[in-house]
Amino acid sequence: MTIKVGVVGATGYAGAELVRILCGHPGVKLAALTSRQYAGMPFQQVYTAMTGIVDHICQDMDVGYLCEAVDVVILALPHKIPMQYVPEFLEKGVKVIDLSADFRFNNPDVYEAHYQPHMARAFLREAVYGLSEVYAEAIRNASLIGNPGCYPTSILLPLIPLLKNGLLDVAGLVADSKSGVSGAGRSPSLGVHFCEVHESFKAYKVAEHRHNPEIDEILSLEAGAPTHITFVPHLVPMSRGMLTTLYGTVEKNIGLKEIRNCLADAYAGCPFIRLYPDGQLPETRFVRGTNFCDIGVKFDAISGRVILVSAIDNLVKGAAGQAVQNMNIMMGLNEETGLMNIPYPI
Amino acid sequence: MTIKVGVVGATGYAGAELVRILCGHPGVKLAALTSRQYAGMPFQQVYTAMTGIVDHICQDMDVGYLCEAVDVVILALPHKIPMQYVPEFLEKGVKVIDLSADFRFNNPDVYEAHYQPHMARAFLREAVYGLSEVYAEAIRNASLIGNPGCYPTSILLPLIPLLKNGLLDVAGLVADSKSGVSGAGRSPSLGVHFCEVHESFKAYKVAEHRHNPEIDEILSLEAGAPTHITFVPHLVPMSRGMLTTLYGTVEKNIGLKEIRNCLADAYAGCPFIRLYPDGQLPETRFVRGTNFCDIGVKFDAISGRVILVSAIDNLVKGAAGQAVQNMNIMMGLNEETGLMNIPYPI
Amino acid sequence: MTIKVGVVGATGYAGAELVRILCGHPGVKLAALTSRQYAGMPFQQVYTAMTGIVDHICQDMDVGYLCEAVDVVILALPHKIPMQYVPEFLEKGVKVIDLSADFRFNNPDVYEAHYQPHMARAFLREAVYGLSEVYAEAIRNASLIGNPGCYPTSILLPLIPLLKNGLLDVAGLVADSKSGVSGAGRSPSLGVHFCEVHESFKAYKVAEHRHNPEIDEILSLEAGAPTHITFVPHLVPMSRGMLTTLYGTVEKNIGLKEIRNCLADAYAGCPFIRLYPDGQLPETRFVRGTNFCDIGVKFDAISGRVILVSAIDNLVKGAAGQAVQNMNIMMGLNEETGLMNIPYPI
Amino acid sequence: MTIKVGVVGATGYAGAELVRILCGHPGVKLAALTSRQYAGMPFQQVYTAMTGIVDHICQDMDVGYLCEAVDVVILALPHKIPMQYVPEFLEKGVKVIDLSADFRFNNPDVYEAHYQPHMARAFLREAVYGLSEVYAEAIRNASLIGNPGCYPTSILLPLIPLLKNGLLDVAGLVADSKSGVSGAGRSPSLGVHFCEVHESFKAYKVAEHRHNPEIDEILSLEAGAPTHITFVPHLVPMSRGMLTTLYGTVEKNIGLKEIRNCLADAYAGCPFIRLYPDGQLPETRFVRGTNFCDIGVKFDAISGRVILVSAIDNLVKGAAGQAVQNMNIMMGLNEETGLMNIPYPI
Repeated sequence: MTIKVGVVGATGYAGAELVRILCGHPGVKLAALTSRQYAGMPFQQVYTAMTGIVDHICQDMDVGYLCEAVDVVILALPHKIPMQYVPEFLEKGVKVIDLSADFRFNNPDVYEAHYQPHMARAFLREAVYGLSEVYAEAIRNASLIGNPGCYPTSILLPLIPLLKNGLLDVAGLVADSKSGVSGAGRSPSLGVHFCEVHESFKAYKVAEHRHNPEIDEILSLEAGAPTHITFVPHLVPMSRGMLTTLYGTVEKNIGLKEIRNCLADAYAGCPFIRLYPDGQLPETRFVRGTNFCDIGVKFDAISGRVILVSAIDNLVKGAAGQAVQNMNIMMGLNEETGLMNIPYPI
Repeated sequence: MTIKVGVVGATGYAGAELVRILCGHPGVKLAALTSRQYAGMPFQQVYTAMTGIVDHICQDMDVGYLCEAVDVVILALPHKIPMQYVPEFLEKGVKVIDLSADFRFNNPDVYEAHYQPHMARAFLREAVYGLSEVYAEAIRNASLIGNPGCYPTSILLPLIPLLKNGLLDVAGLVADSKSGVSGAGRSPSLGVHFCEVHESFKAYKVAEHRHNPEIDEILSLEAGAPTHITFVPHLVPMSRGMLTTLYGTVEKNIGLKEIRNCLADAYAGCPFIRLYPDGQLPETRFVRGTNFCDIGVKFDAISGRVILVSAIDNLVKGAAGQAVQNMNIMMGLNEETGLMNIPYPI
Repeated sequence: MTIKVGVVGATGYAGAELVRILCGHPGVKLAALTSRQYAGMPFQQVYTAMTGIVDHICQDMDVGYLCEAVDVVILALPHKIPMQYVPEFLEKGVKVIDLSADFRFNNPDVYEAHYQPHMARAFLREAVYGLSEVYAEAIRNASLIGNPGCYPTSILLPLIPLLKNGLLDVAGLVADSKSGVSGAGRSPSLGVHFCEVHESFKAYKVAEHRHNPEIDEILSLEAGAPTHITFVPHLVPMSRGMLTTLYGTVEKNIGLKEIRNCLADAYAGCPFIRLYPDGQLPETRFVRGTNFCDIGVKFDAISGRVILVSAIDNLVKGAAGQAVQNMNIMMGLNEETGLMNIPYPI
Repeated sequence: MTIKVGVVGATGYAGAELVRILCGHPGVKLAALTSRQYAGMPFQQVYTAMTGIVDHICQDMDVGYLCEAVDVVILALPHKIPMQYVPEFLEKGVKVIDLSADFRFNNPDVYEAHYQPHMARAFLREAVYGLSEVYAEAIRNASLIGNPGCYPTSILLPLIPLLKNGLLDVAGLVADSKSGVSGAGRSPSLGVHFCEVHESFKAYKVAEHRHNPEIDEILSLEAGAPTHITFVPHLVPMSRGMLTTLYGTVEKNIGLKEIRNCLADAYAGCPFIRLYPDGQLPETRFVRGTNFCDIGVKFDAISGRVILVSAIDNLVKGAAGQAVQNMNIMMGLNEETGLMNIPYPI
């Protein structure tokens, strides 16, 4: 069986990455691409790298057409737009994976506090948060996936097993994250101007990023107690990649060994989690272009603080790759299908 | 049939790129990796990105062992070393693709003038210059390939059809090439120190690079007349990629159309040559990680000069990729096998 | 005497560089800054680096006010706008240095062919082309300077002495230039988006850049014969810096020595020209932040072609620095005043 | 009075930065440069940017000669070497500023635990820790300065006033620091190879960096209680710059206002500390090439955690600039002398 997939918003960075992955996916037919900005233009004129590889013409968004043409639709659109389309897709039996924040929250009030009024509240209940390794069971039975943000993915994967098992004090959590520029999207602005980013480093939206409530909601759920993490994102002068340094205070009698064992148990059999041995630490280049989340662990015995370092490619495990992983799970494929491309050595 | 391949010098950048490509090659079993520096160490400890993907242990070089274990050996070694091993490989029936300069020259005197005394002169005659698109016929029947340098590849592919067909004056040729830093190899030196390269641009070895005689030999052969190109390489603050800007004075009555037609005819059916339409020009990111050679053409009517712009990934079409392409041709496979990975959109 | 200077268009990159230089200039009072986009905002809010250093508030453009407040005005505006203001400044006795193309051309028809209709043609005759080292005498007596483009500066300085003295064949000239991204200005666009520039290299406007006629006009004047150079600009993934590789065919009996002597004679006593000894070549980092134009020379004896490599900082010698140098000359100061900042070692 | 200064180890990055600053310092004569590696070579051949600006020849280290030639010596050498020379300099009345760790510790046991046996323990007592803004009084009367490391400078300046005044819980401190590559020095190694750093980001020496005990010693002293900070350094793909994100739990009734006031009071009148207003955050480019330490403050009310962001140029305020600032203080000059160069806008 070949799954017919549509990508909506295919010319943004996450959308284009979806196109790249799906074109090499053996179980998929990329049935339609849409792009408001480039409708009518060959995709390979927007992304010249794809010349001779992707033959699609960018189409205008047409929900009716897509419902005929595809089994699954992946939405790579700005927040607020997906919630207008999702009800119709679901009613017509098309499964949806949404990369925006629109269907990530259980609690619509939290969404509305940080984004805008929600126009499809009824569907939040059936949406599944698409953190593939943690919610695989629910994803298998879902029709609507709220695909996690890149920062939440890099923060939640290392923390969830530790909180779930009570190894960390929920009051001592800090996430210091560093992202490549592609996370800001493809729209030009002064903030992504080469000369304003290159040979510089900065923090931004300190303790006020919209991914913070998304992370807190899941952490609270998994810890079984209200949990807030202090979260500071930074911008790295590179295109792709995200590294998060997590700080947590361990509970009594918990040390490096318990932390490591807990993570190893939680992610045994997860092909995209690479837990590093002692003394080895992730770098973003090791995961570039891949769906891996690499995790390293260190312990500061003096302060009783564990330091977890996670690395992902923000456009792959942080967006398009995890979306395809979720699609694989939802459609009954092996979750690795189409995602095990070999990384470049440099 | 599965071809057993050995990579000698697998932990340099070209060697590691060979490992990447061959691991994803459906017709190949990567039978052995060697590395003098890292012998005994798992390859994935040298290139952490490969964790869980490449299980090989780096071995010491052992010609006897390799002759038993492989059908084809690809040598990614410094100049001078391959000529010590090649005779034994050939005698024992192992086909050889050599990425060094040792077997690129027809005329050993030219080699010796720019490198060192040649210790396997007898084998130069049977070596085939592995510019895949131009010498496919000879490659098919070869046992020993001298794989072209990265600069020569980017210069020869656009020029050969034009010289062969007499469209350009052999006296007016200039090649202004720009390379990423990986072309300098993995050995640390001040010249590849991040702080000495970043946010800077330079020319080096102006009109005295050792690739110049390699290029001249082939150009002369193809033009049917002694030909010398003025060649200036430059270093770009990026890791991968090579762009060459070629200048040539056209012969009488030759214009953009004749140039374009000549190239289109020469490379019809060549899957790795992408000739761009008018108004479009290659950028190195469009070929990053791929075996493509993208070519754009412009004409300066006032001076009667054609400008050709070619882009390759120096580690792929400029080294490891072309080596595998040659292996495919030599072993009777489709030349695309294992080489049509989809490029990243950014 | 302190010269009162106004900078119009102070928040673009060239304008901000003027502010930097003029703030450290011992003979100048920076009397006014204007910025359409940021009028009313403190300059140090636009360029946070200047916090505590530049106290000025960005003003709206007001020719009348400026005529009262300044002795010299430096215009860092898009083409077409300066020609609207220049007549009034000159009538009121304010000297003008214009960084746009509006007053660079002797022949208004050439300007109009590449830009737009010229509305102040009468003033072209009195405008002096501000290539400081070449036209110092005329600059001394000028009221209106058309400040050269960055590409023309990097191309003309090495070539003019050689053409003037008949050492090169005017038919064989090629300029292969490479620029940092700041040359494209501060306005956001996809072309300067970090992810579209970083880790890539490209040619653009091949043989059709608007600096080509500007260069040709001066070359023709200095060579005493109609002269056209084939000019190809490229974009380097760095913020600042420009390197040009020039190719020229020498006339009979001319070799490296004659070339070098000619340049040494022409630029003896020029503090901003650094002619490199044999075997040494410029890199853009050597001139970063400075007003130097560094020049290296190589000779390709086989083809009889000289290769000249020049490096400038596109924002300094290619724009703001040369403007201040011209101001110094015009106002009777030592040309070095305020421009001899010490470069960073890296 | 002109102060005669010698720079020992002038061709490393910190040494070269000292040369840059001292060449533009109006109260200084740069009397001697030494370099083991480049002895006998003109400095401008090692750093081509300095052509025509620095005339010095690199000398071999000769303590006797230096004692004759200089009033102050600044040592930019690897750890362990300075302690061999310092006693003789001091005995002969030459003041010493040492950029290594050799004289930063009060407690020699701590030094020995993290470095090597100390051979000049007696001098540790008279050495002053050269954090200029905090220890100005002691510096004024010192003969020997242990110049702080770059990480400690970026961490201590924001924290000391808060700890001294009891605003933070000493148990909750985390420093997440990010440094440019020049911090690793000029010696080539795989870790600073362009291709291994570019387009990547990593943590290293997590909770085991040798700057940790240096920071802890000062924090404990200033807090009046044993204090340990969890410290994780990271490497940014840029040459210069350091940004530290500090996390601290506030004591009862302490909020953003108290934090901000405390810092404002502590650094009133300190020309090199720029405390940012609410809503503004430092970026490393804002301090590039300057001696500033820029500080921004944010408060996470949910967790009661303050977040401090500091930015310095690791080679200036983190090394050479602070050394010159200390020299100014020690020699009775205004501390700004020679250090108020205007930063580049980009």
